[in-house]
Amino acid sequence: MCIEKTPWEQVIDFHGHTCPEIALGYRVAQIAMRELGIKPTPSTELVVTAQTHSCALDAFQILNHATFGRGALKVDENKQHKYLFEYSDTSVRVTITVLPKILEHLVIPENLATRREIQNATLEAIQFILSSEENMFCTIQKDDHQ
Amino acid sequence: MCIEKTPWEQVIDFHGHTCPEIALGYRVAQIAMRELGIKPTPSTELVVTAQTHSCALDAFQILNHATFGRGALKVDENKQHKYLFEYSDTSVRVTITVLPKILEHLVIPENLATRREIQNATLEAIQFILSSEENMFCTIQKDDHQ
Repeated sequence: MCIEKTPWEQVIDFHGHTCPEIALGYRVAQIAMRELGIKPTPSTELVVTAQTHSCALDAFQILNHATFGRGALKVDENKQHKYLFEYSDTSVRVTITVLPKILEHLVIPENLATRREIQNATLEAIQFILSSEENMFCTIQKDDHQ
Repeated sequence: MCIEKTPWEQVIDFHGHTCPEIALGYRVAQIAMRELGIKPTPSTELVVTAQTHSCALDAFQILNHATFGRGALKVDENKQHKYLFEYSDTSVRVTITVLPKILEHLVIPENLATRREIQNATLEAIQFILSSEENMFCTIQKDDHQ
């Protein structure tokens, strides 16, 4: 039997490990697609500009098809989890800024001794990132830049 | 029935289009894996450093699992199709430099009028890149940097 991978499994398979940052990217990517509400066509390119480099970026490569090789994923390093999504043939763009309370969960405490403790803390952080109310997770700014 | 995608199909699905540069990356990625001859473990990271940014990079993300988000794919821009592959826990590294004769085929002539002409020229270039004798395609330098 052949079971289609879930979007989460696709992202984790590509990324190579499970971590809080990829969970953050996964959630941002899904919000962006919902907000943009349009499907890319062969002549349209969705470009993602991140204000920090992190594991999160791999989620945009899979879910938003914004690959680094194709030049559709850019980093403008500013140490902020703020992400701009824009399609090449529309003037609508969406900026998603992850809130500070969420970012606190990206760092796994250093005082954990065992691999199991680290794993549990990682899973708790991922759970928190994926299940927070959306208005506690990020702000969403949608505008027409023309 | 469920048919497993070929490596080529996996790369093209991820990349989003078929072009000579992704064919170049596909071939370089496969040569690298053959030359390194070791499988990554959870504690080993294969890092790819490219001397130019192009579509080729997406092949390394899929075939070598060197993703941009994870920091395993780097660009040191020097306008050369020269690629360094190194594992984090070994001292062996492989540098693959694509030869000038191949690079000529990356550019599709500008005087083509129709979409079909462009498509045919693209397919011919891909065919050339994928089928050239290996010693006409690249040089391979393998060394122990310790």
